[in-house]
Amino acid sequence: MTTLIKNGTIVTATEMYKADILVKNGVISEIGREISKIASEIVDAAEKWVLPGAVDVHTHIDAQCDGMTTVDDFETGTAAAAAGGTTTVVDYAEQEPGVSLAQTLEKWKTKAGPRAVIDYGFHLALTEINDSILSEIPAMVDAGVTSFKISLDGAGERYISDADVLEFLQKVGGAGGLACVHAENGQIINLLLRRLGNDGKAPVKSVLSIRPPEIEAESTARVITLAELAKVPVYIANLSSAHAAEKVKIARDRGQAVFAETCPHYLVLGSDRYDDPEGIKYYSTPPLRPAWHQEVLWKALGSGDLHVVSSDHTAFNFVGQKDAGRDSFFRAPRGLPGIQERLAVTYSAGVHGGKISANRFVDLVSTMPAKLFGLFPRKGSLVVGSDADMVIFDPKADQVMSKSLGLSRVDYCPYEGMRMRGAPWLVIQRGRTIAREGKVMGRPGTGEYLPRIKFSGV
Amino acid sequence: MTTLIKNGTIVTATEMYKADILVKNGVISEIGREISKIASEIVDAAEKWVLPGAVDVHTHIDAQCDGMTTVDDFETGTAAAAAGGTTTVVDYAEQEPGVSLAQTLEKWKTKAGPRAVIDYGFHLALTEINDSILSEIPAMVDAGVTSFKISLDGAGERYISDADVLEFLQKVGGAGGLACVHAENGQIINLLLRRLGNDGKAPVKSVLSIRPPEIEAESTARVITLAELAKVPVYIANLSSAHAAEKVKIARDRGQAVFAETCPHYLVLGSDRYDDPEGIKYYSTPPLRPAWHQEVLWKALGSGDLHVVSSDHTAFNFVGQKDAGRDSFFRAPRGLPGIQERLAVTYSAGVHGGKISANRFVDLVSTMPAKLFGLFPRKGSLVVGSDADMVIFDPKADQVMSKSLGLSRVDYCPYEGMRMRGAPWLVIQRGRTIAREGKVMGRPGTGEYLPRIKFSGV
Amino acid sequence: MTTLIKNGTIVTATEMYKADILVKNGVISEIGREISKIASEIVDAAEKWVLPGAVDVHTHIDAQCDGMTTVDDFETGTAAAAAGGTTTVVDYAEQEPGVSLAQTLEKWKTKAGPRAVIDYGFHLALTEINDSILSEIPAMVDAGVTSFKISLDGAGERYISDADVLEFLQKVGGAGGLACVHAENGQIINLLLRRLGNDGKAPVKSVLSIRPPEIEAESTARVITLAELAKVPVYIANLSSAHAAEKVKIARDRGQAVFAETCPHYLVLGSDRYDDPEGIKYYSTPPLRPAWHQEVLWKALGSGDLHVVSSDHTAFNFVGQKDAGRDSFFRAPRGLPGIQERLAVTYSAGVHGGKISANRFVDLVSTMPAKLFGLFPRKGSLVVGSDADMVIFDPKADQVMSKSLGLSRVDYCPYEGMRMRGAPWLVIQRGRTIAREGKVMGRPGTGEYLPRIKFSGV
Amino acid sequence: MTTLIKNGTIVTATEMYKADILVKNGVISEIGREISKIASEIVDAAEKWVLPGAVDVHTHIDAQCDGMTTVDDFETGTAAAAAGGTTTVVDYAEQEPGVSLAQTLEKWKTKAGPRAVIDYGFHLALTEINDSILSEIPAMVDAGVTSFKISLDGAGERYISDADVLEFLQKVGGAGGLACVHAENGQIINLLLRRLGNDGKAPVKSVLSIRPPEIEAESTARVITLAELAKVPVYIANLSSAHAAEKVKIARDRGQAVFAETCPHYLVLGSDRYDDPEGIKYYSTPPLRPAWHQEVLWKALGSGDLHVVSSDHTAFNFVGQKDAGRDSFFRAPRGLPGIQERLAVTYSAGVHGGKISANRFVDLVSTMPAKLFGLFPRKGSLVVGSDADMVIFDPKADQVMSKSLGLSRVDYCPYEGMRMRGAPWLVIQRGRTIAREGKVMGRPGTGEYLPRIKFSGV
Repeated sequence: MTTLIKNGTIVTATEMYKADILVKNGVISEIGREISKIASEIVDAAEKWVLPGAVDVHTHIDAQCDGMTTVDDFETGTAAAAAGGTTTVVDYAEQEPGVSLAQTLEKWKTKAGPRAVIDYGFHLALTEINDSILSEIPAMVDAGVTSFKISLDGAGERYISDADVLEFLQKVGGAGGLACVHAENGQIINLLLRRLGNDGKAPVKSVLSIRPPEIEAESTARVITLAELAKVPVYIANLSSAHAAEKVKIARDRGQAVFAETCPHYLVLGSDRYDDPEGIKYYSTPPLRPAWHQEVLWKALGSGDLHVVSSDHTAFNFVGQKDAGRDSFFRAPRGLPGIQERLAVTYSAGVHGGKISANRFVDLVSTMPAKLFGLFPRKGSLVVGSDADMVIFDPKADQVMSKSLGLSRVDYCPYEGMRMRGAPWLVIQRGRTIAREGKVMGRPGTGEYLPRIKFSGV
Repeated sequence: MTTLIKNGTIVTATEMYKADILVKNGVISEIGREISKIASEIVDAAEKWVLPGAVDVHTHIDAQCDGMTTVDDFETGTAAAAAGGTTTVVDYAEQEPGVSLAQTLEKWKTKAGPRAVIDYGFHLALTEINDSILSEIPAMVDAGVTSFKISLDGAGERYISDADVLEFLQKVGGAGGLACVHAENGQIINLLLRRLGNDGKAPVKSVLSIRPPEIEAESTARVITLAELAKVPVYIANLSSAHAAEKVKIARDRGQAVFAETCPHYLVLGSDRYDDPEGIKYYSTPPLRPAWHQEVLWKALGSGDLHVVSSDHTAFNFVGQKDAGRDSFFRAPRGLPGIQERLAVTYSAGVHGGKISANRFVDLVSTMPAKLFGLFPRKGSLVVGSDADMVIFDPKADQVMSKSLGLSRVDYCPYEGMRMRGAPWLVIQRGRTIAREGKVMGRPGTGEYLPRIKFSGV
Repeated sequence: MTTLIKNGTIVTATEMYKADILVKNGVISEIGREISKIASEIVDAAEKWVLPGAVDVHTHIDAQCDGMTTVDDFETGTAAAAAGGTTTVVDYAEQEPGVSLAQTLEKWKTKAGPRAVIDYGFHLALTEINDSILSEIPAMVDAGVTSFKISLDGAGERYISDADVLEFLQKVGGAGGLACVHAENGQIINLLLRRLGNDGKAPVKSVLSIRPPEIEAESTARVITLAELAKVPVYIANLSSAHAAEKVKIARDRGQAVFAETCPHYLVLGSDRYDDPEGIKYYSTPPLRPAWHQEVLWKALGSGDLHVVSSDHTAFNFVGQKDAGRDSFFRAPRGLPGIQERLAVTYSAGVHGGKISANRFVDLVSTMPAKLFGLFPRKGSLVVGSDADMVIFDPKADQVMSKSLGLSRVDYCPYEGMRMRGAPWLVIQRGRTIAREGKVMGRPGTGEYLPRIKFSGV
Repeated sequence: MTTLIKNGTIVTATEMYKADILVKNGVISEIGREISKIASEIVDAAEKWVLPGAVDVHTHIDAQCDGMTTVDDFETGTAAAAAGGTTTVVDYAEQEPGVSLAQTLEKWKTKAGPRAVIDYGFHLALTEINDSILSEIPAMVDAGVTSFKISLDGAGERYISDADVLEFLQKVGGAGGLACVHAENGQIINLLLRRLGNDGKAPVKSVLSIRPPEIEAESTARVITLAELAKVPVYIANLSSAHAAEKVKIARDRGQAVFAETCPHYLVLGSDRYDDPEGIKYYSTPPLRPAWHQEVLWKALGSGDLHVVSSDHTAFNFVGQKDAGRDSFFRAPRGLPGIQERLAVTYSAGVHGGKISANRFVDLVSTMPAKLFGLFPRKGSLVVGSDADMVIFDPKADQVMSKSLGLSRVDYCPYEGMRMRGAPWLVIQRGRTIAREGKVMGRPGTGEYLPRIKFSGV
């Protein structure tokens, strides 16, 4: 089977040029001028951009978080991804205490295998650090699971000590993997939470006082120092604040291999959303920040001090889930949906908004995540030999974000009513069209599992 | 009783001028030109400098540390202090688990009362943070104990969590006290120590790998962030490295009330001392650093980013105590003596060495510690109304440091054989001569206990 | 003749304590508790502060600037100074092209001698750099004129090349003097002025666009680099902006001997004054800056990155002088009066406003300028042997600034209507009361000329 | 005519992948897997890398500098370039006083047209700033000459004032061009040179004292500030020192559009070369720096704070030209040859040496200079539609640098005897092989003149 993409403008992390792309057997076979071969399918991409399929490296699909289950399974979650231009997802397989990494991985493969509409891989999110778990890491890396995450925002049983962080970093880095960290100081969060008192009654805007940017910055700096001691690279997940971005920058200026991602909601939504009567919809950790942080994050994205925009898609319904925290915010599950909106938000606010170039946009949503997480150049790239994952993107599209456009099962859209420029028009995976103008065409189970290669720098 | 100091050059943190000083009832009564009154005692300070008596705010006299008792009781410890120009000591009263702060204070007063040759006060060093201990703090502050310390280099039972650090900082600061912290990351130290393996056999130079400067800097930065959250001032004790000094500087540049002390051994002894066959003598925590750190510390002392030079006098004999760590360094008790050598070392390397001015020298060893710890202007000052504590200092003195000169019971001198310029010639407390040319004249029990005032900035 | 100051609280750059001061023959003879000697005059300073007489190191009295003559001669100028608490002035003797430094100095001595109410010295302000002028510098230094200034904000004939700046810095520093620089880039100012076009018609607020802070910062950085090459200290006069303060800070962090002064008007008046119909009153160079700069300047004053608050007193009448620039601002003479208001403004906004301590206030207006310019400890100090120059200061005074309070001949007060806390109550020079509650009592010609000593660090 | 490059590994600024390239009519027509079309010429690039042809944006071919003429004309200069992997050169057309830019451009076109072996464009190097010259700039930009340079290291007649710099920056930037600056403080250089005295007799190592890095940094910072005022991008040419790199970094951290290039000699040759008896060979401006600067420059190249490695090829013979400065170095013409060695040196020390990635190497020598100077994506890129300029590079080649390998007419090689890894094997321009294993095959006059597009960011 062959597909021919004609007349488009190819945009990569470095280039922007007109050419046709011929796909054979799911792989880019040829890039040429006015290719006139016979193809099973011909796509006319005139006036459109052709981007490498986007790669989302932070999602929580069909996951238990905060005692509830996110509403998307791998069918709806990846359908939403596909509609939004994402052709690869690296989801967090969440290890439960007492369960091995191998078992966790199998469990997640079972969830995703029959349902995924797009290609997928998994990070392993560890909830405990012990010899047994650590000893599994090298085999996991060799088997193609090359990234692992811990979260430092827990207290009590979920608390991970600095010594455990160091062990984790060295074990992962030593095995050729990339260690990822959610960096907020859990002991302090817990203390500040207890201090709220009032039997726990507190509106969602209280999250700002119990998770101030200082403790994100402190935890980020600590992890960076431990990675420096361990002599391994480290990846800061869902960085939200100017304070934490500054710590990443200082380390990078020193030459350390530190990488960091932020998310669309940190880039366009401010903490004033917590004043909304339904502000609990926006309850995420780290929380949304005052709007001035956004400028700092955009600047870091532009300069190369932040590397990835991921969705951190964590879809809970407002009715029946999020609203559990109306009176006591911390009873609500945390997180925002965004797997479908990621490209539109980042392009619209970033490229259309004049903050980053089109090349940089592609780098942030596709190329760099693919490189960091061992998928490049199979993914994240539009070169001969790469998987024929493409977004035919309409930079002139003009849409108003709305729940009604979403393919996720979630019952709200965090960007409701915001006008966005630019949208995916056609999304192609391994040569097959899987979404068109926001409608998914890919069938469940056609997504492939992606073993990944070791980290070797970018 | 009256004493008249004639013909000297008074050197304070700001001034250098010739004048006579008249002392009445232990207090400076008059400063004048050619005072010709009748006095019980007349001291001719021609060609000498008259400094305010030095204030040492970090000592461990008659203390249990690491399972052993330091060799100096308050008689020998303060005699050595007096001989070296120190007229006030603020010693660490070490709370033992389960013992109240009030009991701890009483115990230390009992130790010091009958023996002290110089005036003294106490910080309270806490080994545990719990509601009971925290609740005692305000009363202690009101009673004149206005500073409290925790050490973060412990693991296991001695581990103090970040939440406890924040509670401690707020309780102390809220009560008007000054919180002091020994900042090294104990969890990491313990992990690195365990990794040394080899049944614990390791030479003292291994301390460099288990207590690298990065973990001092990390802990320092963390404490500073927590103090920022708590909105209270904080004092970093025994800062040893360029890495940690940088963290203090960054916070101060931001305008935060962070203060820090270093010690003579960090200023003139390098980590190559650990290559000495008797290198265990120099086992301190934080450890001695490679020599290049010294330049950074001196620069910070000169610029005002470090505030105090204290001795951290922790006197253990080499024979019978320190040598317990010959094969396994961590079996040795930690710390260096230095209560007597502090002024000579700081003056010689600092002022004679061209790194700091004479005014700055006085500030670092006397005025600033008195201000920070609630003793100013009674101590640390040469103004009318202040206690008549004075060092008649000979800036031209030329001595070779030696154990034989020491009044401490300790059996070695860390500076053995080093040539120093400048030495105390006469030391006066409240008008009485308590030391002359290195010989102590003060009698045990004549030192007075010093209640201190609340911290209110410098 | 003897004077006794009783019951006051002495405030110096370091201390604050109660004591009496006995003055004999114009010099502080004794400081004591309850001095009960017979004195010619007894001053009761109860409830008051006793400060060292203030030292103003930047004034333009009886000077030709911009083609006009400032309205104060040394009688009115120093009377205003005295009323405001200043007992020493170091005025800029302005060399005219072709006139030798020796002649310039004589001319200024002639102006001041018969008229000065307070003690005085001179800097030499050079308008040209050539071998003849440079060759005079060492002799001037030896004769007690130990500071020299150049202005870099001129273009055309007044332009001083970088090579000349380096020659100047080395000549002055090599002779033991302190080089002072007005740092703004004259070539750029001139270009931007020409670009205003419109036959030169431009309101005073245009000064903001032709003298932006970037060109002050650039010139400051350049001078600092040249001083670094020359290996000499340098003093940046009338620094006005956050941008320039940052350059001073960077150099000081590197350890370079850079010092800088700012002025009261930069600390409390913002550039919105240029919107005033009589905004030309505030035309100074550098210009007033947007209000946010003030916080940065205060922070630098507090942290020690700025060293002096001087008045830069340049008194031109609004009517008949300043108003020449109503339509074309640059036709007005530049500068603001302030010799009398300096202490009140700095105390009120700084100490009462909680930005700096009382000690730091004294340092900035008296001690540090005396040290930097070779007058210490004769001036700037309250120790035995120093000149008995004192301000009996009432920290609780409450006054509304007004032209009617001023002793200068100038016809307006830049601080008109602003409420200030704290004011000089009595001003004493060498034991004589020269001002009381804003009225001058000193007689013209009683001020003494002050030869100064070489710069040797602070 | 068609050419087929088979079996190579394509390396671009972002990618590294295996593919074949088909060239038609000098343009990349197709990139595919195992292209099996019939082609006029087939190149087997197995085991080799295929890079975009390198772009050298700083050369002085057939130029009058320092009163002498460089030894290469456009035939030998571009032949050497071709042999070294460079397929495009942007040479400095040097305007002479009184000659228009249009005339200058014509003169340079005449020099290059009949001789160039590779494609070429020109910057215009201005030696004077006046209304006439400035007024020509917009037309030049429209005609495709989109970059202009001034040198600030001159004094006297060659001195360019700050006002002229600002005019220049605004005129160039306003027209859509990119302003380039050689940043060293000429007034200070001249002063320091005069101070050398001794009738000008001075060995070449004296260049270190008259052109210290501080004056490069100062001039760089000044230009950056003026560009900030002018609100235009600026390009710092031939940056040599850590000091100057720091200034670029500070501005970029602030978000300013500042770009900078360094050269191979600054990356691998240290100032100890000036101790060589034939040290005058290495006389360049800025001079070679102590070796530690190299690490800083490499780090900045890696992090994106430096953007281009150009040759600054300025070929003067040692015998008869450089040796004129044996006794008085400044009588020698300045500059080093390097047009042929640029890729080998940068690859060997950078990529083989582990300092930068292969992608970054391509960016620095080809893609980024093409983007900055308006040649992208025609040059600097390996995409369909781009000119088929390629270097078939052998990353395993192992050669010892030697004059005997050079195609330039110059009589020495600055890298003589240094072993380099990696070398161009085949060099292709617009589909034609122009060099093979160091031998040139291109014919004079076949290089094409390149009009360039306006600067619009990278």
